[in-house]
Amino acid sequence: MTSALNVSALASDLIRHPSVSPDPGETQIALGATLSALGFEVFHLPYGEGEERTPNLFARRGKGKPHLCFAGHTDVVPPGGGGWQHGPFEGAVEDGVLYGRGACDMKGAIAAFVSAVSTVLEKTPEPKGSISLLITGDEEGPAQFGTKKVLEWMQAHDQIPDFCVVGEPTNPASMGEVIKIGRRGSINVRITVRGKQGHVAYPHRADNPVHRLIAILSELTAEPLDQGSEWFEPSSLQVTSIDVGNTATNVIPAEAAARLNIRFNDLHSGKALHEWIETVSRKHAPDCDVDARISGESFLTKPGPELEALRMAVRDVTGREPKLDTGGGTSDARFIALYCPVAEFGLVGASMHQIDEHVTVADLDTLTCVYERLLERTVA
Amino acid sequence: MTSALNVSALASDLIRHPSVSPDPGETQIALGATLSALGFEVFHLPYGEGEERTPNLFARRGKGKPHLCFAGHTDVVPPGGGGWQHGPFEGAVEDGVLYGRGACDMKGAIAAFVSAVSTVLEKTPEPKGSISLLITGDEEGPAQFGTKKVLEWMQAHDQIPDFCVVGEPTNPASMGEVIKIGRRGSINVRITVRGKQGHVAYPHRADNPVHRLIAILSELTAEPLDQGSEWFEPSSLQVTSIDVGNTATNVIPAEAAARLNIRFNDLHSGKALHEWIETVSRKHAPDCDVDARISGESFLTKPGPELEALRMAVRDVTGREPKLDTGGGTSDARFIALYCPVAEFGLVGASMHQIDEHVTVADLDTLTCVYERLLERTVA
Ligand SMILES: [Zn+2]
Ligand SMILES: [Zn+2]
Repeated sequence: MTSALNVSALASDLIRHPSVSPDPGETQIALGATLSALGFEVFHLPYGEGEERTPNLFARRGKGKPHLCFAGHTDVVPPGGGGWQHGPFEGAVEDGVLYGRGACDMKGAIAAFVSAVSTVLEKTPEPKGSISLLITGDEEGPAQFGTKKVLEWMQAHDQIPDFCVVGEPTNPASMGEVIKIGRRGSINVRITVRGKQGHVAYPHRADNPVHRLIAILSELTAEPLDQGSEWFEPSSLQVTSIDVGNTATNVIPAEAAARLNIRFNDLHSGKALHEWIETVSRKHAPDCDVDARISGESFLTKPGPELEALRMAVRDVTGREPKLDTGGGTSDARFIALYCPVAEFGLVGASMHQIDEHVTVADLDTLTCVYERLLERTVA
Repeated sequence: MTSALNVSALASDLIRHPSVSPDPGETQIALGATLSALGFEVFHLPYGEGEERTPNLFARRGKGKPHLCFAGHTDVVPPGGGGWQHGPFEGAVEDGVLYGRGACDMKGAIAAFVSAVSTVLEKTPEPKGSISLLITGDEEGPAQFGTKKVLEWMQAHDQIPDFCVVGEPTNPASMGEVIKIGRRGSINVRITVRGKQGHVAYPHRADNPVHRLIAILSELTAEPLDQGSEWFEPSSLQVTSIDVGNTATNVIPAEAAARLNIRFNDLHSGKALHEWIETVSRKHAPDCDVDARISGESFLTKPGPELEALRMAVRDVTGREPKLDTGGGTSDARFIALYCPVAEFGLVGASMHQIDEHVTVADLDTLTCVYERLLERTVA
């Protein structure tokens, strides 16, 4: 057996492979080599063509039950202009802080999991359960050829785990605050109302689509969608844009369009919300167009033995009782939830997607310990 | 005395001077010469500088009472692409129809009035009352240096008439249908709401200006402004544009703006409407901006002796009882109404502002006769 791998060194190595989404792939070649050396069977699973080509990696060690999977992504958002104290792809450590794009979101968490695995394998070279990693190169982008496709492959090859932990940065300010056990669903809708153009002085000869659209949006935003549910905040509908583009002050325009997004909890489904918006829209504008795209349904992993193991691991290492939370944006956990129970626990996300993204070495060590305890409580 | 001037020939002459708004001025030089020959004192009154330079003409014959004024404009809207059967500035007559830009709006009406004056002066070389013409070169454009300025000059020089007839095309399909005795007022408003930008997943950290704007517009459009008044159609509020320009489906925007126009009758004033919109807007968005521009207040010339003379002239010549109307768009009559009673009667407007604008020679003759009878019933 190889000796335990150092988490900071591993994280620096991963950061030094620039991987603005979609990851060109080198990060995953390096990661695959490390996992091979640890005894994993490694599958490189690229999907998509040309500019959409997305590298993905699935690696598994052992065949036993339970099967615990760590999911994450090697791609990062662009560095975004200059002004970095340390180069975004240098992976510099200064005064106990690791800087670089991906430090907390989420190369740092991948390094923590790999380091934890190496420690556990030193103590228990042949664990009873099995360990896997599901790593995509496109989580920050359209995510069409990433986790979703790998899960289909895993399904076809009988590789679906019993529990999955996603390494997204879940802690707002310090380690141990939050485990995410679900996410709200998200639906984007575009409503286009066509009327009849005319002169404002002769409104009876025209049909103002803006007035119809105002009536639709007024009804859609009049009441809260719900008051929240046991594990979720209230759902939220936000009209993000209305665009007519009519510069003539004396002309009633021919068309008006609005966009909205709903983040919805487990009291709704994307399909039911789409139908509701259609019904309200057609009431005020019978031949409008309602274009809906469901980015993800809401999901929730209810407390169970594996989630309890993660919760106790966090409590043991940080001394805190983590909040079981379902707020915030979407992540690839929405895809995984269709196959198995999933929870998210990672680093402190305060600097994610910003200039000088960073993580403390202390937090990297803490996360490594949490993942070690989780492995010990489940597969070891 | 010169012999009576032929209306079709006069109208053709005026059309042959291209005068897309603002009129470069030649039309008015020609018209001034004709009026001088008829014994008028002619004042050329240009206002504005550079591209805004607007030629205007005031001409008066006699000093007696009553003083009847004809108001009109020599500028025309652009010909608008090709496809004219006869050149827009040719003034061609074919099969009893005069073609050209300005044929009905409103060089034809100017020609009819001048021809009518020449006929009246043949019969009555020295009428008891006085006759004047107020002609601007910018009615189709911003109208800032036209009729408004000439009226100030007329006020300063004691030239305000007892009654003014405006030669705009008032008849929808055939001569004698409509005399306009008033116009609705018009106000343009722009409402800008500022909020706080944010991510749709965290709406409590943002303040969505689109939702505030929807609430404002919903309240403004919820109820009709009125049911109409004795002489007016109901007032009408039309939201002409809403513009946010946010293309990110996951971002709550920082700002949203809407434009609206109100055409209002004599139950409202521009100032009161502006205040109402301010009040409603601030209720939903305390620090929004409400920008209002009143293009004109509503006005009404109630039945009186001069209007009665015009009405009888129309009835005598056409055999029809004209409808006294206040509908449609604005005209320079809104400025004149601040100084004296004003009514509008001209040609058939069906082809105005269109390709192949035209008027029949028969209609030109009819209008000439109407103006003759009006002059006979008032100043002769
Ligand atoms: Zn991430
Ligand atoms: Zn006109």
